[in-house]
Amino acid sequence: MRFRQVAIVGATGAVGREFARVLTQRCFPAESYRLLASARSAGTLVDWAGRTLKVELLRPAVFDGVDLAFFSAGAAVSREFVLRAQRAGAIVIDNSSAFRMAPDVPLVVPEVNPQALRAHQGIIANPNCSTIILAVALWPLHRVNPIRRVVVATYQAVSGAGARALAELEAQTRAVLAGSAPEARVFHEPCAFNVFSHDSPIGPDGYNLEETKLMRELAKIFGDENIRVAATCMRVPVQRAHTEAVSIEFEHPMDESEARAILQSAPGVRVIDDRIANRFPTPLAATGRDEVLVGRIRRDPTIADGRGLQLICVGDQLRKGAALNAVQIAELLA
Amino acid sequence: MRFRQVAIVGATGAVGREFARVLTQRCFPAESYRLLASARSAGTLVDWAGRTLKVELLRPAVFDGVDLAFFSAGAAVSREFVLRAQRAGAIVIDNSSAFRMAPDVPLVVPEVNPQALRAHQGIIANPNCSTIILAVALWPLHRVNPIRRVVVATYQAVSGAGARALAELEAQTRAVLAGSAPEARVFHEPCAFNVFSHDSPIGPDGYNLEETKLMRELAKIFGDENIRVAATCMRVPVQRAHTEAVSIEFEHPMDESEARAILQSAPGVRVIDDRIANRFPTPLAATGRDEVLVGRIRRDPTIADGRGLQLICVGDQLRKGAALNAVQIAELLA
Repeated sequence: MRFRQVAIVGATGAVGREFARVLTQRCFPAESYRLLASARSAGTLVDWAGRTLKVELLRPAVFDGVDLAFFSAGAAVSREFVLRAQRAGAIVIDNSSAFRMAPDVPLVVPEVNPQALRAHQGIIANPNCSTIILAVALWPLHRVNPIRRVVVATYQAVSGAGARALAELEAQTRAVLAGSAPEARVFHEPCAFNVFSHDSPIGPDGYNLEETKLMRELAKIFGDENIRVAATCMRVPVQRAHTEAVSIEFEHPMDESEARAILQSAPGVRVIDDRIANRFPTPLAATGRDEVLVGRIRRDPTIADGRGLQLICVGDQLRKGAALNAVQIAELLA
Repeated sequence: MRFRQVAIVGATGAVGREFARVLTQRCFPAESYRLLASARSAGTLVDWAGRTLKVELLRPAVFDGVDLAFFSAGAAVSREFVLRAQRAGAIVIDNSSAFRMAPDVPLVVPEVNPQALRAHQGIIANPNCSTIILAVALWPLHRVNPIRRVVVATYQAVSGAGARALAELEAQTRAVLAGSAPEARVFHEPCAFNVFSHDSPIGPDGYNLEETKLMRELAKIFGDENIRVAATCMRVPVQRAHTEAVSIEFEHPMDESEARAILQSAPGVRVIDDRIANRFPTPLAATGRDEVLVGRIRRDPTIADGRGLQLICVGDQLRKGAALNAVQIAELLA
C-alpha cells in the first residue's frame, strides 16, 4: 500500500528534520508530502526527500486529502489538531504524550508490540523517547523471564528539548570556553559542562513528567501491569542520544550469558560489551544509528537468587526515540 | 596540636593543587610544607599557602622529619611509599585505594565515622570520591533507619582522572566545535559531548574498579556489612563535581518529609529540593563548595511498605571527594 498524501506536523523541528532523513533513507511509500508548522515557520522552504517544499500553516482544515499524518509538535498542538486530522480521514501517528495512555490508542514499539496496531481507531501513539530505548532493550529479556522491577537513571541528550536546545548547548559551550557566563534560555539550568534534573514539570509525588512517562508507558507497551519502574531522568551535555543505566529484577533467575545471547539475536538491538577493551555503548556511537546499543551486561549481586541484572542501553533520541519508530509504525500499516 | 612538617605527595596533580587551596582556606595548623612529586614535576615552583615552594623528588629517604603526609598520586605510588613514610614516623592520610580495605587501616569520612580514627596505626585511608559523596548523603538516614540496598548510577566529572583529563575535555570540546574529530589520549573514548562507562579496569564479575570501590567501601565506612550496593559508574563531560542518582531500600518505612528534615540538619549536607522552580543539585552549583548537595528526595513507589526513597547527591570531586575530606581527617588528628 502507498500513502497518497503524508503530512508532517512540526516539520521544521529537530524531530521533523529527522523525519525527512528517515523517510528518504527508507524509501517510504508516499506519493506526496505536506509539511505543516506554526506561523513562525510557515512559508519557509525545506529540502525534503529530494525536493524543496514550502511549509504550510497548520490550521483546522489543512488535513483534507491527507491519509497519514505524523505529529511531532508537542502535546498542546496534538491535543488541538490530532482529532481534526483523524476526522478528516487521516491515520495519525502522534509523537507527543497527549494520547499515549488513552485506552483506545495503541502505544507501539514495532519490535515489541506490533500486534497492538490491529486495534487502532485512527490514532497511534509513539512512546516517549527514553521509553522506546528501554523497551527495545528489555522486551527480549522480559518475554522469556518476566521483569518485575526496573530502576533506571537516564543521561538524556539536549535534542529532546528541540532544535533550540541543541543551539543553546553549542552557544553555552562556546561561551564557557571563552571565559564568559553561559546564558540559559531554553533550559532552566546551564547545560554546558553540567548535569541537571530533567526540565519537565514535577508532580505532587516528586517525579518529573519524563520520569512519570517512563514509569507508566513501559507497562502499557509490554501489556504487563506487574512491571514497576523507578526512574531518575537527568540531562547531560550530549547532542542527540540518550543513555540509560538499568537495574533489573526478574521473576526467575537470569544468567548473564543467557541475557547476552538473547540480546545478541534481538531485533533492533546491537550488543557492544567488550570488557577487556573497555568498549561499551556511548551516545556518540549511537548517533545516527537505528539500533539501540546494549552493554555492561552483568549480574546484580544485591538481588537474591540470581534474579538481578544490570546493563546500559543507548539510543539515538531523534531517530529510534522519535522519527524512526513512527516511520516503522507507518510501514507496518502500509 | 600543630604539625611541624607536612608532606604532600602528588602536589602538582589536580587533587594536589586543591590541597593548596583547602589548607590555606582552613588555616591548617602546619609549620611547613614539603611538596613531593615524580621526576616529571620535581624542580618546578608552585604557589602554596602564600609562598612559592619548589617541588622535591619523591624518593625513599624523603620522609625524615615529616610528621604528616597526604598521599594523592595513585595506588602504585602509595604501595611503594606509604609504608616508608609510616616507618619514618609520619602519619599518612592516603587518598588512593591501596590500603582502603586493609583491616587495620581506618577508612574515614569525618561526618560519618570519626571514631574509627582512634584505632589508626599510622595509616588512614580516604575513601573513593564517589563513595565519600554517597556516604555523606546516606549516613544521616542510615543511622535512624538502616539502609539495606542502594542502587546508584553516577555522572562522574573528568577531574577524577586528573589534570590531563581536564585539559583533554577542553581540547576535545574546542575540536568538536571547530568541526574536527576529538583526539582521545587520557580516556579510551571521546569525552566531549559524550557519556561513557568509567575508564577503570573491569573485573571478572563485569564491574569496573570504580563500581567495586563504591560497592565495598560504603559497608566499611558505615560499619555495617548488611548494606548492599549495586553501582553503575559513568563519566560525563563535566569538569569537577560528581552527580549520583540513588535508589534506597530501608529496613523500615521512611517518610519523604522525615528524610528531608534529617538531611536538612545533617553535617556536610545542603538540601536543594525546590520542585516548583525545578531547582535541584547540579555539578556546577557544587563546584568549589564543601557541602554535598542533596535533592530530588521522593518516595520510590516500586518498593513495598514505604521503605523506598530516591534522591540525587552531588559533590565537588576534588574537594569533599578528595582534598577536603583528607584535611578534615588531619584536623581531627590535630
